[in-house]
Amino acid sequence: MNIAELGDRILNGERRALARAITLVESGRDDHRAQATDLLDQLAGVGRQALRIGLSGTPGVGKSTFIESFGMMLTGQGLRVAVLAVDPSSARSGGSILGDKTRMERLSREKNAFIRPSPSQSHLGGVARRTREAIALCEAAGFDVVLIETVGVGQSETVVAEMSDLFLLLLAPAGGDELQGVKRGIMEMADMILINKADGDLKATATRTCADYAGALRLLRKRPQDPEGFPKAMTVSAVEEHGLEQAWDEMQTLTTWRRDAGHWASNRATQAQYWFKQEVRHALLARLETPQMRDRMSDLGTQVSAGRLSPSAAADQILAGLSDT
Amino acid sequence: MNIAELGDRILNGERRALARAITLVESGRDDHRAQATDLLDQLAGVGRQALRIGLSGTPGVGKSTFIESFGMMLTGQGLRVAVLAVDPSSARSGGSILGDKTRMERLSREKNAFIRPSPSQSHLGGVARRTREAIALCEAAGFDVVLIETVGVGQSETVVAEMSDLFLLLLAPAGGDELQGVKRGIMEMADMILINKADGDLKATATRTCADYAGALRLLRKRPQDPEGFPKAMTVSAVEEHGLEQAWDEMQTLTTWRRDAGHWASNRATQAQYWFKQEVRHALLARLETPQMRDRMSDLGTQVSAGRLSPSAAADQILAGLSDT
Repeated sequence: MNIAELGDRILNGERRALARAITLVESGRDDHRAQATDLLDQLAGVGRQALRIGLSGTPGVGKSTFIESFGMMLTGQGLRVAVLAVDPSSARSGGSILGDKTRMERLSREKNAFIRPSPSQSHLGGVARRTREAIALCEAAGFDVVLIETVGVGQSETVVAEMSDLFLLLLAPAGGDELQGVKRGIMEMADMILINKADGDLKATATRTCADYAGALRLLRKRPQDPEGFPKAMTVSAVEEHGLEQAWDEMQTLTTWRRDAGHWASNRATQAQYWFKQEVRHALLARLETPQMRDRMSDLGTQVSAGRLSPSAAADQILAGLSDT
Repeated sequence: MNIAELGDRILNGERRALARAITLVESGRDDHRAQATDLLDQLAGVGRQALRIGLSGTPGVGKSTFIESFGMMLTGQGLRVAVLAVDPSSARSGGSILGDKTRMERLSREKNAFIRPSPSQSHLGGVARRTREAIALCEAAGFDVVLIETVGVGQSETVVAEMSDLFLLLLAPAGGDELQGVKRGIMEMADMILINKADGDLKATATRTCADYAGALRLLRKRPQDPEGFPKAMTVSAVEEHGLEQAWDEMQTLTTWRRDAGHWASNRATQAQYWFKQEVRHALLARLETPQMRDRMSDLGTQVSAGRLSPSAAADQILAGLSDT
C-alpha cells in the first residue's frame, strides 16, 4: 500500500480510504504498525480537529437509536459525523461486531456519516490505542463530530472519557428513586446526562428521573472545566427525535465556553500526557505476556503456590530474566 | 548484624529481636534488603503459621479500642497476639506512626502481645511487601494471631484482605437505612461484619444496623469458602468488652471449617500467586521511577502536551531507553 497516497485520499475525505486506514491501525502485524505510524505522522501536521463526543450507556437505554437520530440531525445541519465504538466485550459476545451498521441503518446510508464497528480485540489497552488512532484519522478526514460509543464494560468509560472533549451519559427513565446503579465515578465524568425515551408512557417518568439526576449532579463538587449550570441533565426522545437539537445547543454552549476559557486545549494536553503514561505502562507490562514469559510465570507460580518459593524470590527470578532480553 | 543469631532469637519468641527484624525488612537500603532476604529464607523452613486476621474500618468506628479489647481477651486465653498496621496515608498525616502504642495502652504492656506501628512509607506496593514479610516474622516468632489493621484508604483493604485468612469489617451503628457508604467491594471481601459500640444509647441502633447488614450479606452471592451462615454480621462492644468471645468463637468455627475443607491451604496458595504477580508488576513499573527515567518522562510529557510528539511515539522512546539499561 502506498501510504502517501492513502494519506492524501484521507485528507480528501474519502470514506473508503479512511476505512482502510483504520483497518491498518487495528492490525497486529509489525509491518502494518510501521505503516500506520508513518501514516499518522504524515497526517498529524494537518491540525484538523473534530469535536470528540464520548457516549456511555448500558444496553437497553436506546443508544443505537440515539446515535442514529442525533447523527441524522447533525448531518442535516451539514456536519460530517463519524461513529466509533469501544467495546472490549465484543470479541467475546460477537454481538456488536457485525451489528453496528445494521442497527443504524439510516445513518449508515448518509454520505456525510461514517460508522466503524468495534475492533474485535478484547484487550482494553490495545483497543484504547487503536481507537485514539482511529479518531485521529477521522479528524484528518475532515469529520466535524466524532462520536465514541462505549457499552460501559469494566474500565471502558474511563478510556472513552479520557479521549473525549465531551462525555455524555445516556440513561433510561427509572421508576422510584433508584439511580439505576450508575457508578459514582461515571457520574463524575459526565458533562451531560441525557434521559432517553422521554416519550409516550415513559415521558413523566423521564422528567422525574431527569430531576433526580439534576439533583444528584448538584451534589457533586464543581469542576473548573464547567461553566454555571453544568454538568446538566436533560430529557430526549431518540425515537420521536425531540430534545436532540436542544442537547446539541447545550453541547455547543459548553464547548465554546471551554474553548474560550482555555479548558479545551488544556484538556487535550492532559489527555495526551495520560495516554503517553498509559502506553508506557501497558508496553512495559506486555513484556510479561510473551509465550516464554507466560510459561516461566506459570512454572514459578506453581512453586510459589506450593510454598517452595516465596513470592518475592520468584518475582526476582522473573525480573532477572526480563533484564536479559 | 548477625542474621543467624537474629533468626534464632526470633524463633525463641523474643520481641526485641522481632522488632529489629521488622525494621530490617522495612529498610530501603540494598544491604538491609539482602540481609532481610537471608533472614526470611532462614525462617521460612520452620513452617509456623498464625491465624492472620485482617481488620478494616474507617476512623471513628473504635478500631483501636476493639483491637485492644479483643487482643486482651485473646492474651487472657493464653494466646500470643501481634498487631500490624497498613496505613498508606501515615507518611502524610504522620498521625498513626507514633500513636499505635499509646492508643492501645493496656495491650502494649502485655508480654504476650506485640504492637508494630505502620511503616512510614506511602507507596502501597512497598507497604504490602513489608507487611507480608512482617507477618512471616511474627509467625516465625510463634504468635498465634496476627491482626493486620487498615484504615481503608484507597486500595489498602484489598491489600490486607489478600494477606489475611479472615477479613473483618468493623462498623459503627448508623441511623436509618444508610449503609455508611461501605464500598460494595469491601462488603464482598468481608468474612464477618462487626457492628461496634453496641452499648448505652447506641445499643438499639447497633442491633438494627446489624440486621441491615445481615440482610445485605444474604443478597451477595455465596462463596465456596463459606459454610452455612457466613459471612456473618454481629454486634460487639469494645468498651464494655462484650460480644468479643462470641465473635472469636465464630472466627474459630469458620477457620476450622475452612481448614477441614481445604480452603485455608488453597487460599494461602492463591494469595502467594497473587503476590508473586503483584511483585513482578510492581518491580517492572518501578523501572520508570528512577530519577533519570522521571526526568525523561517529564521532558517527553511536555512535548506530548504541546502536541509536538504523539503519546505513542513518546512511549516508544521511553521503552527504547529502558531496554538499554
